[in-house]
Amino acid sequence: MAENELEGRKRKKRKKRVTLPQIGASPGTLFIDPDAPRPRLRVFGYSADGVEEQAACSLAELDRLKAKYPVVWLDVVGLGDEQLLRAIGERFQIHPLALEDVTHSHQRPKLERYGDDLFIVARMVFSPEDGVDIDQVSLFLGDGFVVSFQQREAEVFEPVRERIRKAVGRIRTRGADYLAYALLDSVVDGVFPVLEYVGNDLERIELGLFANPEPRALEEIQLHKRDLLSVRRAIWPLRDALALVLREPGGRITEDTRLYLRDTADHTVQLVELVESHRELCNSLVDLHMTAMSHRMNEVMKVLTLIATVFMPLSFVTGLYGMNFDTEHPANMPELRWQFGYPYAIGLMLCITGGLLVYFRRKKWI
Amino acid sequence: MAENELEGRKRKKRKKRVTLPQIGASPGTLFIDPDAPRPRLRVFGYSADGVEEQAACSLAELDRLKAKYPVVWLDVVGLGDEQLLRAIGERFQIHPLALEDVTHSHQRPKLERYGDDLFIVARMVFSPEDGVDIDQVSLFLGDGFVVSFQQREAEVFEPVRERIRKAVGRIRTRGADYLAYALLDSVVDGVFPVLEYVGNDLERIELGLFANPEPRALEEIQLHKRDLLSVRRAIWPLRDALALVLREPGGRITEDTRLYLRDTADHTVQLVELVESHRELCNSLVDLHMTAMSHRMNEVMKVLTLIATVFMPLSFVTGLYGMNFDTEHPANMPELRWQFGYPYAIGLMLCITGGLLVYFRRKKWI
Amino acid sequence: MAENELEGRKRKKRKKRVTLPQIGASPGTLFIDPDAPRPRLRVFGYSADGVEEQAACSLAELDRLKAKYPVVWLDVVGLGDEQLLRAIGERFQIHPLALEDVTHSHQRPKLERYGDDLFIVARMVFSPEDGVDIDQVSLFLGDGFVVSFQQREAEVFEPVRERIRKAVGRIRTRGADYLAYALLDSVVDGVFPVLEYVGNDLERIELGLFANPEPRALEEIQLHKRDLLSVRRAIWPLRDALALVLREPGGRITEDTRLYLRDTADHTVQLVELVESHRELCNSLVDLHMTAMSHRMNEVMKVLTLIATVFMPLSFVTGLYGMNFDTEHPANMPELRWQFGYPYAIGLMLCITGGLLVYFRRKKWI
Amino acid sequence: MAENELEGRKRKKRKKRVTLPQIGASPGTLFIDPDAPRPRLRVFGYSADGVEEQAACSLAELDRLKAKYPVVWLDVVGLGDEQLLRAIGERFQIHPLALEDVTHSHQRPKLERYGDDLFIVARMVFSPEDGVDIDQVSLFLGDGFVVSFQQREAEVFEPVRERIRKAVGRIRTRGADYLAYALLDSVVDGVFPVLEYVGNDLERIELGLFANPEPRALEEIQLHKRDLLSVRRAIWPLRDALALVLREPGGRITEDTRLYLRDTADHTVQLVELVESHRELCNSLVDLHMTAMSHRMNEVMKVLTLIATVFMPLSFVTGLYGMNFDTEHPANMPELRWQFGYPYAIGLMLCITGGLLVYFRRKKWI
Amino acid sequence: MAENELEGRKRKKRKKRVTLPQIGASPGTLFIDPDAPRPRLRVFGYSADGVEEQAACSLAELDRLKAKYPVVWLDVVGLGDEQLLRAIGERFQIHPLALEDVTHSHQRPKLERYGDDLFIVARMVFSPEDGVDIDQVSLFLGDGFVVSFQQREAEVFEPVRERIRKAVGRIRTRGADYLAYALLDSVVDGVFPVLEYVGNDLERIELGLFANPEPRALEEIQLHKRDLLSVRRAIWPLRDALALVLREPGGRITEDTRLYLRDTADHTVQLVELVESHRELCNSLVDLHMTAMSHRMNEVMKVLTLIATVFMPLSFVTGLYGMNFDTEHPANMPELRWQFGYPYAIGLMLCITGGLLVYFRRKKWI
Repeated sequence: MAENELEGRKRKKRKKRVTLPQIGASPGTLFIDPDAPRPRLRVFGYSADGVEEQAACSLAELDRLKAKYPVVWLDVVGLGDEQLLRAIGERFQIHPLALEDVTHSHQRPKLERYGDDLFIVARMVFSPEDGVDIDQVSLFLGDGFVVSFQQREAEVFEPVRERIRKAVGRIRTRGADYLAYALLDSVVDGVFPVLEYVGNDLERIELGLFANPEPRALEEIQLHKRDLLSVRRAIWPLRDALALVLREPGGRITEDTRLYLRDTADHTVQLVELVESHRELCNSLVDLHMTAMSHRMNEVMKVLTLIATVFMPLSFVTGLYGMNFDTEHPANMPELRWQFGYPYAIGLMLCITGGLLVYFRRKKWI
Repeated sequence: MAENELEGRKRKKRKKRVTLPQIGASPGTLFIDPDAPRPRLRVFGYSADGVEEQAACSLAELDRLKAKYPVVWLDVVGLGDEQLLRAIGERFQIHPLALEDVTHSHQRPKLERYGDDLFIVARMVFSPEDGVDIDQVSLFLGDGFVVSFQQREAEVFEPVRERIRKAVGRIRTRGADYLAYALLDSVVDGVFPVLEYVGNDLERIELGLFANPEPRALEEIQLHKRDLLSVRRAIWPLRDALALVLREPGGRITEDTRLYLRDTADHTVQLVELVESHRELCNSLVDLHMTAMSHRMNEVMKVLTLIATVFMPLSFVTGLYGMNFDTEHPANMPELRWQFGYPYAIGLMLCITGGLLVYFRRKKWI
Repeated sequence: MAENELEGRKRKKRKKRVTLPQIGASPGTLFIDPDAPRPRLRVFGYSADGVEEQAACSLAELDRLKAKYPVVWLDVVGLGDEQLLRAIGERFQIHPLALEDVTHSHQRPKLERYGDDLFIVARMVFSPEDGVDIDQVSLFLGDGFVVSFQQREAEVFEPVRERIRKAVGRIRTRGADYLAYALLDSVVDGVFPVLEYVGNDLERIELGLFANPEPRALEEIQLHKRDLLSVRRAIWPLRDALALVLREPGGRITEDTRLYLRDTADHTVQLVELVESHRELCNSLVDLHMTAMSHRMNEVMKVLTLIATVFMPLSFVTGLYGMNFDTEHPANMPELRWQFGYPYAIGLMLCITGGLLVYFRRKKWI
Repeated sequence: MAENELEGRKRKKRKKRVTLPQIGASPGTLFIDPDAPRPRLRVFGYSADGVEEQAACSLAELDRLKAKYPVVWLDVVGLGDEQLLRAIGERFQIHPLALEDVTHSHQRPKLERYGDDLFIVARMVFSPEDGVDIDQVSLFLGDGFVVSFQQREAEVFEPVRERIRKAVGRIRTRGADYLAYALLDSVVDGVFPVLEYVGNDLERIELGLFANPEPRALEEIQLHKRDLLSVRRAIWPLRDALALVLREPGGRITEDTRLYLRDTADHTVQLVELVESHRELCNSLVDLHMTAMSHRMNEVMKVLTLIATVFMPLSFVTGLYGMNFDTEHPANMPELRWQFGYPYAIGLMLCITGGLLVYFRRKKWI
Repeated sequence: MAENELEGRKRKKRKKRVTLPQIGASPGTLFIDPDAPRPRLRVFGYSADGVEEQAACSLAELDRLKAKYPVVWLDVVGLGDEQLLRAIGERFQIHPLALEDVTHSHQRPKLERYGDDLFIVARMVFSPEDGVDIDQVSLFLGDGFVVSFQQREAEVFEPVRERIRKAVGRIRTRGADYLAYALLDSVVDGVFPVLEYVGNDLERIELGLFANPEPRALEEIQLHKRDLLSVRRAIWPLRDALALVLREPGGRITEDTRLYLRDTADHTVQLVELVESHRELCNSLVDLHMTAMSHRMNEVMKVLTLIATVFMPLSFVTGLYGMNFDTEHPANMPELRWQFGYPYAIGLMLCITGGLLVYFRRKKWI
């Protein structure tokens, strides 16, 4: 991560605010962000024989497609129009509480039954290069249709669209429950690249840790820990909700699709485990960082001690022979008048230095 | 947090004492705090057609409203009058143990059945600016009425009152169970702003951590950890109790209201997760603080070592030529009599300094 | 905690030994501590109409009371007489295994069924001023009687005795199961003051932590951690056992008493949570202590570094002009012969000092 | 622990190797350690009326005893003879998988049903003075007999033998299930003294920690942590297995013996809790050790700082007046020519020292 | 671990990449690594009477063996040919989702039912000398056959092959479910040597820790922690899946084989516990390392302090008598003119040194 990128991510984190539920508001109230883009309705109607796609559909067209095809997928991108959302809700008989959850942008992922219908809230992860960015995606599976709601256009559904268009695999021959599975599956699988990116970056940090234990590495690890926490919060509840749906037969999910959903549930479990192991790695790295810093400190201290321990006795000797005692008296520093006093002093100092070096060598300090 | 605010919060923490259960007291004993304000009874009676509100109701009036309207909400603020509380308890057939719990100000949140009636103890959070402040609120849901008990007037119920007055949403067309849900829901949602405040403050602390690792930051984190612990203790049991009520059909909660309660249960789960992630953040910040302090220490030590390592050899040289050996003898410090002895000594010292600087540069200390 | 008090508590901890179960001993063997006081039998027989109390009862008297009153409470204080204990066991048909558990002083708290009879082992906490002191109390609830066994007289039962004597509340009108509940409830509630004491002491320690991070504080926290561990071991199993009894209908506990027991179960849960939050606080305090010590160390190191960094260059200058180069040669230290050489040297040193102070100020060290 | 004892334990730890299961070996293969002693068969046959004991029994004798007595206990010590083990296995209809588990010396403790028969693997702890030493003991409870397998003679069964010989308690009047209980109970109770020994040693370490924070203490704590881990691995699975057996009625365990087994299960729970609390203590001690070391470091650093801070300014003063400026010029160090120059310098130094001491006193460093 | 080995392992870690699931791909898509070797089909057909083995079998041969023998084992090594894999899938009626899982090389271990058939994904560990290396192995148990898929030839199945060839034990007389058990059992048992290797290496590290607390030890521990994490991820899910299969009767696993599988499940539990205890050991070692480093630092600091504390006063004395006060004035340093001034100064310095040494001895620093 480059320095300004790190700065950028920190700023971004600060800007994003959780939309708090309005205390005491009547249930079913929609929370429309005034800055949100107006919804764009992309519709697919298909059967085993044919497919019809409309990138920006009107409500009237929608009715026609619903009547004509056994499976209809309405993809709503952007949540900025209360009227339109309510109209869609009525047309597809989406429960008001479900519709409210669609507009709350920080819902906990869940799978809820409303009668036979299944309402899914999941969290979708965006391109990880500039920090993990998580958006909510809601799916409503009714009788012969799936309505998906996104805040922003996500590329994660594109492969599913391609499969519908080109009739790849089974998708065109199966019902709406299979479509809901396919969408949920791509949302879940979209988390893997993010974790891989984080894993690689952690490895990079680990390699640089001993070379240069800077506190900046800590900040980066801290950011990754937060991202991992977000991903865990996005996946963990989904895992539990999927397990619950798999245990309870009935509802709109056929026995056959259930088999596929089991695969998706498996992936959520795998993701949770990956997140946990990445988080453990983060904690290990923090410990390693501390140790590397301690080790550096030890090195610095050792050098200081060596220098001080060698030069303090030497300076003492020079100080000794720098005293001004009256050398007339024979007891007062006779060395000063020796013919080889100076070489003797130098020799004395060399002896002291040598002795200390031997001592340090024995203590394995040098 | 300003310094005196921090001080203020610490003092406040110290003053607040848990009212301990009186050992061996007969069950059903009410615990009346002599300093508590006398109860004020605010009553709403309503049906789909009309609503009647009395800000300070008498017991006689209460009977009249109960007879007239299908749903009656009695809101008791202040718990300082045993007689009155007992009278209310008898009139609404509240079990003595429930009434006792109402007056114990540090009950664990719970949902309990007394026959068909439902007794709810929750904890309500107040304006977070001056520290998280938590009060108990009790709800008793009987046949056609809800009685709520609070120690202090809380603004958290005001939006519900407004919805009743203005018939916003479904509230006026539904029974007492829906009212109980609406009240519990506002109590739960009232915790979100507190967590947001704590989250923001933690972010502020994090940003200042590397700039200035003062122990005061630790104290602030410590206070937040305590607040988060209190919030968790206030929410966690509610989550479990709600899950239990949702699993068991029957009682006064209709199937339809159960759907709404599921939403509230969801919010408690989300709150618990937020608390946990904030607490993890706190722990990370403590680690970061430690690291920042270690890093500073390292910096200080490096400067000390550099200075000492450079000047000790230099001082040794000056000491050397400050010795008083008799320079009459040619072996004794001939340098002193050299024509350029002084420049030579200066040069020697410059060489030593240069060599050391190169050494430090190689060790990446400077 | 005063210093000698701390010492006293440490000594006390050392003296108290767990009585180990004798390996391979035949089950039903009683473990009589030869130093234990002889049992004193205090008996209450009561009905709604009357009460009879005997502070030191004989076995014959006991039979008379049992025949006369619907509820009899035998309180055995002191476990130092095997014959007497066995006689009581036979008279009340207490299972030999239960009787064995009574004499094992470090049983895990539990609620066990022997046929319809209920055997309760709980742990009772004594006055906390001189350290948490925990004793075992066993209750045996049979048909129309409760037998309680204690090692030492505990004040915790006194309020219950008063309620029986003065017919406060419902106690005299209910059966033996209600009495057992009342006794267990006072034992559980008796733990609250201890936790409050610990909580207050931890707060005191916290306030003194930054002022004076002495290792003694660590020792105190360590002692509190141990006490909290003991309390947890005393309460946690009770919580689980109570939950189990509440789930299973039948036995001697009537439906009505079950409602009251639910309250006691609630208190055990609350106690466990308090213990856990106190323990978390302990851990935080240990961290804070470490940080406070690190901070102090930083302070000390900074002073050392400042002093050394200022005076080492100055001493170098003085050493420089203390050298004995022959100033006859004009290149050798001409400063020494300058008219204002000394003021120049002083000025040089002032400049160095000033420069360093500016540098430190910029680094925010002073 | 004496130093050489510590060394001895470390060496011992290194020598002991886990016998790994042979990959892909056919199930039912016996793992005979060639160095293991040949089995010695000690048999008890008993009824309420009589008992017969044979210290080294032949297989023929065994058949006679089995026919004569309602309960037969065959105690096999040493597992070094495949033929003999297989012969015993056939005679008592022990499942080959159970027999294989008997010879695997590092089985996880478990209670397994083979039809009605019960196979128990437990772990037995030896005299703790020279380190916790754990051996496997297997019990096979069939119709009217118990076969126990041990690697080495353990004293833990001796009290049970005594009870059979002397008809202490109920043991002679009950069936083989009671015998199995009695044996398992002594194995479990045999762990208590070990934990007491560890607890006492930890206390000893704790007391010495502040006096002398040597790294050797860490090594000792580390060894204890390992021992505790081994004990936990030996007890934890037994606890779960016992709970399972107690929940499921049927098999060879009669209702009455089940009551006694409940007691044993209780003891395993208590042991697990003791182990956990000892392990927490270990962790606390490691923290305390770190703190004690930090505190010592602080002390050392403070002394260094005090000395350096006092003597550096003093040395500077002496250096100052040791300069050789030409005192002919009146501006150059006039102090040197003062009549009381030396006393003045001494006074100056005393002032500096005094000032610094006051400063340190204010900072609470001395 | 030698240094270059450590480097090698680090490089290897970096090279290995998880094959990410392709987002939105149609379920049943096979992921064929273009570099993977082409599959080699090794087949065993056997009954109690005979066995036929083909090291490189054609599909036609396969049909013949399937018709002839009651049990057929097809072992597919290498997954580099989509056509062939699909052909095998059809011939043995392997569900497309199962076949997809076979080709995903980083599946979570699991046991899944497809109708009556059982699909097992496990993870196999390779020779631990050059780092833990984990491969996926999939088993498909159908009616009378087992198909196993491996990426690389593993030696772990060789003993099973031998048992089939030589009719060791029961394997030839039992059905395909017993074969599946035998294969899974060898995979699980193959993990034990790896953990033993890690355990031994950790012990080696522990012994060297106090002698030389180098940060390299930390890196090694970190690598082991990662390996342990991988092993745990490979075993933990298997443990849960096996427990589930053992609880649910029915499917292709006969009651008798279930008894053997219980043994394998036991081994997975034991492995998980070993991994956990090794991981705890790793954490302890990190703590020990930190302590050893702190202790070394303390030692270094003490030496520095001793030297500085002794020589600073001495240097002060020499500086004192090196001052140039005019000794004409009697008050100015009369010592300089004393007859034994120099011996007096030496004596003074010896006194100071002696006093300090006594002080240090009392403080237990030397």
